[in-house]
Amino acid sequence: MKIAEMRLHPIAVADAPLRSSYGRHAPYALRTIVELRSTDGLTGIAETYGGDGPLAALEGVRSRVEGMDPFQLSRLWMQSEEDARREQADIAGGRSQTYLVPGENPLDKHTRTYGAIEVACLDLIGKALGKPLCDVVGGRARNEVAFSCYLFYKHAGGGGLGADEREDEYGEALDAVSIVAQARQMVARYGFKEIKLKGGVLDPDIEIDSIRNLRAEFGPAYPLRIDPNCAWSVDTSVHVGRSLKEELSDGGYLEDPAAGMDGMAEVRRRLLAEGNQTPLASNVAVTCFAHVPEAWRTDAVQIVLSDPHYWGGIRNLQRLSHLCDTLGMGLSMHSNNHLGVSLMTMAHAAASAPGLTYACDTHYPWQTEQDEVVAGGRIAFHQGAVRIPDKPGLGVDLDFDQLQKLKRLYEGLPFRKRDDEAEMRKHVDPNWRRILPRW
Amino acid sequence: MKIAEMRLHPIAVADAPLRSSYGRHAPYALRTIVELRSTDGLTGIAETYGGDGPLAALEGVRSRVEGMDPFQLSRLWMQSEEDARREQADIAGGRSQTYLVPGENPLDKHTRTYGAIEVACLDLIGKALGKPLCDVVGGRARNEVAFSCYLFYKHAGGGGLGADEREDEYGEALDAVSIVAQARQMVARYGFKEIKLKGGVLDPDIEIDSIRNLRAEFGPAYPLRIDPNCAWSVDTSVHVGRSLKEELSDGGYLEDPAAGMDGMAEVRRRLLAEGNQTPLASNVAVTCFAHVPEAWRTDAVQIVLSDPHYWGGIRNLQRLSHLCDTLGMGLSMHSNNHLGVSLMTMAHAAASAPGLTYACDTHYPWQTEQDEVVAGGRIAFHQGAVRIPDKPGLGVDLDFDQLQKLKRLYEGLPFRKRDDEAEMRKHVDPNWRRILPRW
Repeated sequence: MKIAEMRLHPIAVADAPLRSSYGRHAPYALRTIVELRSTDGLTGIAETYGGDGPLAALEGVRSRVEGMDPFQLSRLWMQSEEDARREQADIAGGRSQTYLVPGENPLDKHTRTYGAIEVACLDLIGKALGKPLCDVVGGRARNEVAFSCYLFYKHAGGGGLGADEREDEYGEALDAVSIVAQARQMVARYGFKEIKLKGGVLDPDIEIDSIRNLRAEFGPAYPLRIDPNCAWSVDTSVHVGRSLKEELSDGGYLEDPAAGMDGMAEVRRRLLAEGNQTPLASNVAVTCFAHVPEAWRTDAVQIVLSDPHYWGGIRNLQRLSHLCDTLGMGLSMHSNNHLGVSLMTMAHAAASAPGLTYACDTHYPWQTEQDEVVAGGRIAFHQGAVRIPDKPGLGVDLDFDQLQKLKRLYEGLPFRKRDDEAEMRKHVDPNWRRILPRW
Repeated sequence: MKIAEMRLHPIAVADAPLRSSYGRHAPYALRTIVELRSTDGLTGIAETYGGDGPLAALEGVRSRVEGMDPFQLSRLWMQSEEDARREQADIAGGRSQTYLVPGENPLDKHTRTYGAIEVACLDLIGKALGKPLCDVVGGRARNEVAFSCYLFYKHAGGGGLGADEREDEYGEALDAVSIVAQARQMVARYGFKEIKLKGGVLDPDIEIDSIRNLRAEFGPAYPLRIDPNCAWSVDTSVHVGRSLKEELSDGGYLEDPAAGMDGMAEVRRRLLAEGNQTPLASNVAVTCFAHVPEAWRTDAVQIVLSDPHYWGGIRNLQRLSHLCDTLGMGLSMHSNNHLGVSLMTMAHAAASAPGLTYACDTHYPWQTEQDEVVAGGRIAFHQGAVRIPDKPGLGVDLDFDQLQKLKRLYEGLPFRKRDDEAEMRKHVDPNWRRILPRW
């Protein structure tokens, strides 16, 4: 079996005006669907970051991918690492994730690109074998993968534009009370058992109140996490950590309160000195394997946020799981806006990674049936978890009519890159820019 | 596909009277051949440590293995880890590898047992898929795996007893000149390009001379390594490291000169302080994943010696490769007496582990055609390397006549456990015991 053809489908997906320290989500999120067609008539698929940059990076490996044996992934990975070593000469000097949205960091261009190809190859292998993807890479540690209820402060609106505008399922949430209504609604629909709040948007004391209200509503059986994407100074981070000591215990965590490995390490030291054991999680200070030993050595991060999309696919996520386990670090999973192909990728990755014991983040509730590319419609959640289906590969196929529709949406857009600052300037404050730390 | 039956074949293999700091090899080495027969008529095989202990450990997992899906290895690994956690309560207090021969450390009973089952399952999967084993686990980083020329000081004799005694191919080697003859002979026959000397047997100055003579004979194109199995004090280790600074450079290393993580770290510090960068390798201070971060943090070890037999199979070896790569540590491979099934296991493991850049150790030249269990006879070396064959799974099958012969040899033996001290007392010195450090 060889890969006969790689097809790339850039698509746009309606997205609600969600807020974060990056700014405000645009009415459409960008994704790319990858199809690998094999010489024996099978198709492997993957979903990854969208827009011109990720698309060009995938085009850049077309000559390697077409004609390759999908089993020979080590070789592709070694080529990818070689490219990264060569190109990082140009971006040396410590460009980190801090100021970049996920999917736009040149430092992980190669792992993002490789990850998409790897997942499509493993889907292909699973289909050739008649085995679920997670069983192709060593078998499953769990049959169901728990996801978390991912809350956002947001403006009114459901995403999309004009005739294509989506229903605003959750409504506006820009205070510490309406965020609880959002949580109630989302938990009722999906059954999630852990809750994450995207912070770094309102005054930290309002965000502290939001978490306290969530704890009052759901009780300690629902672990809580808050993620301001580095919007806070070390002092503010310590203030929040201190204020939420009880609320973030019992399986919760404080995610990327401050920027940089040093900032995180200082927050940790100061909280520990107060007897506050709240673990710090990160997908900003730690975004690649090389960061992990340093984060461990300095105790800057206790929980690494994995993501098969930018950590380099499913086997690299398993490697990360093993690395964290070896270092005594926890493992959770990061998310970006995504559709069902990515959801199943995250589910198979988490099912096959024994160390991934936290519920994975997912933006899935923020997208709708109208924008799903998976044949048969939206993936079902069972008490907040996705079950590994008894089907080959990822367990999902593409709905080509939907794919065409989303490609047309993409073609009609005036932008090819995520820019949450531009959206803020357009809708909220013409002078808005991202400032770190803001508080 | 399920595993219908596990068959265990304890065997004995003639072995030459090789010397090490453990003592002297007995006339027979013990191994176990594992056969897993699947419900669809395929057979997966593995080779592992021999004697009562390893056999009982394999029997201990029979009820888990029979009936299992060979793809569900994560679950078996998690059960194995759970067993290890439970049982290690009994052997707490820091029992290390230092005083134990490989295969007899209770701390790695579970990884040894799991590793044998995993390899047989992967062989089965490879056969079901029609793919070489290394391609089932992600594909190969290399098509040929280099092995090293493994020299031993030895007494006269080829191994075996009575009518079963083997020809003494290499003759006695108990000084710094005859070891060079051994090397010449072995390099001529197998084409090895890296050379390892098992030390810790003669006065360190004789062993220093041995390495110098090897360098004089083969030149710097043949990297050299010496392994006294912790027979030296820190002072002696530094003396040897200093004396062989040039000879062990250019891809060579100093393996386990002194006992313990502390001893190794002190040797390293003192050599570095002299500007001596000779890397220290270990399969004694570091024998499981938990040891690696500590070895990295303290700089006690720069090269980890992997081994699919006790590190827990092929995927664990890949994880170790990745871990070492992440920590900037080197990776080589340890060996015990073995036959062709193990040789192919080591070759597939090394082929699928990108970080394994040193030639792997192998005892294979010390066994003979008369004791090979692989159908078709001994595995061929091409310029010191084993080529990954274009055959499914490990690429070798069992010769059942040979297997029966080696089982009968095992049944006739008065011992069921390796005991190199007993052999020393029998043949060399009635009062001999292993003393660390000896020099």
